Amino acid sequence: MKKTGIILSGCGFLDGSEIHEAVLTLLALDRAGIEAIVLAPDIPQIHVVNHRTGEVAQGEMRNVLDESARISRGAVTDLAQIDTLNLDALILPGGYGAAKNLSDYGFKGAECSVNPDVARAIRSFHQADKPIGFICIAPALAAQVLGAEHPLLTIGNDPSTAKDLETMGARHVDCPVWNAIVWNKGKILSTPAYMLGPSIAEVAKGIDRLVEELARLL
Amino acid sequence: MKKTGIILSGCGFLDGSEIHEAVLTLLALDRAGIEAIVLAPDIPQIHVVNHRTGEVAQGEMRNVLDESARISRGAVTDLAQIDTLNLDALILPGGYGAAKNLSDYGFKGAECSVNPDVARAIRSFHQADKPIGFICIAPALAAQVLGAEHPLLTIGNDPSTAKDLETMGARHVDCPVWNAIVWNKGKILSTPAYMLGPSIAEVAKGIDRLVEELARLL
Repeated sequence: MKKTGIILSGCGFLDGSEIHEAVLTLLALDRAGIEAIVLAPDIPQIHVVNHRTGEVAQGEMRNVLDESARISRGAVTDLAQIDTLNLDALILPGGYGAAKNLSDYGFKGAECSVNPDVARAIRSFHQADKPIGFICIAPALAAQVLGAEHPLLTIGNDPSTAKDLETMGARHVDCPVWNAIVWNKGKILSTPAYMLGPSIAEVAKGIDRLVEELARLL
Repeated sequence: MKKTGIILSGCGFLDGSEIHEAVLTLLALDRAGIEAIVLAPDIPQIHVVNHRTGEVAQGEMRNVLDESARISRGAVTDLAQIDTLNLDALILPGGYGAAKNLSDYGFKGAECSVNPDVARAIRSFHQADKPIGFICIAPALAAQVLGAEHPLLTIGNDPSTAKDLETMGARHVDCPVWNAIVWNKGKILSTPAYMLGPSIAEVAKGIDRLVEELARLL
C-alpha cells in the first residue's frame, strides 16, 4: 500500500489547516487505497483566532502538532520524523496555518520564509521525484521553496496573490475550483480549493482530481 | 432550497464533534442541494482533551460555539436561536462532545440528561414531523429524549452502549457502517459511523445514505 504524508498546520482555517480540505484529502486518499500519514511540526501556533468572531484570542496558546491531531483522530507524527516513514508522496492542504505556522507568507508575502522542516520535506520529495500536492494557499510554499525551477502552480484568482507567486519564481495558472493541475517536470500538483470556493462540494471535486492525478503518478 | 440544521458540540472527537462526520455531513448536504446551518450551544466545553496524547489539558477552557465555528468556517448560530431559522430538518453528528457537552451520557450512561436546548430542538422537530438524523454516538441523545416512543436506533456493536439505549427505551438495530436506518414512524434516521469505523471512506458511505434518506423525507 502506497503511503502519502499530509502536512497539517493546526485545526481551523483562520489559524491552522482548512478542516474541509484536510478531511476531503483524507477521504480521497482512503477511496484511492492510499494510506495517509498525518504530519505536523511540533511548534506553537503563531496565534489563536476565534473562528466565530474572527478575532485573535489574546493570550491563548495552542500547539500545531496537538491541534492537527484533532483532524487525524489522534494519529499524528512530528514532521521532524519524516525521514523514518518511507513515504511515497506528500500533500499540503491550505488554511491560514500554511501561511502563518508553516511559513510567514501571510505576513511577508513574496519575502516569506518557510519552516525549515517543511522546506526540507518539499525539497527532498521533489529531488526524489515523488509527487507533492499543494492545495489552496499552500502553493505559495512551493513557489518559495522551488521558485528557481519556475513550477506551474494554481492559487485561485486573486491578482496580488498570483503576483506574489510569480515574484517568487513560479508561473501562475488559472484553474477552476473543480480541477487540479500537474507540473509534469516536477510531479508538482495543485488545486485552488477555498481560494476560490464557494462550496464544499466544488472544493471536493478539485481535491478528488488532485488525488486522482497523484495516485496515477505513484 | 431546503435548510438543515447541524448541531455541533465543539471541534475534535475527544472533546467535541467528530470532525470527519461533521465535514462529511456538510459535503453530503451540499451535494444534495440542501443548505446547512451550523448550530451549537453557547456553553463551555466540559473539558479540553489533547488529541495527540489523549489526556485532559488541565486548566484549559474552550467554548462549544466558538470551536464549532472552526468546522463551519465561521458561520455558526447559537442553538438558542433555532426557532427563528425555519429549518426543515436536523442532523447531530457524533464525537464525545455529543456525550460530554450536549449531554452527560459519557459520564452517566442511561441515567444521562440532555442539554435543554438540544432536547427541546429534538422534541420540537419530532413533534413537527421533521426528519432528524443521528450519527455515531448521537442516537444516545435520541434515546434519552424520545425513549418513551421506543425509536429504532443504531449505535454500532458495543453491547453495553446498545444496552444503555434499550434501558432508555429505544430499540437498538445492528447496522453496518455503510448503511443508515430510518424509523419511519418518527422520521428518525441513524448511522453508526465511527462507532464502527474503521475508515473515513466507509463512514462516508453511511452518512451519504443517511442524508439521501433525509433528502427523500423533505
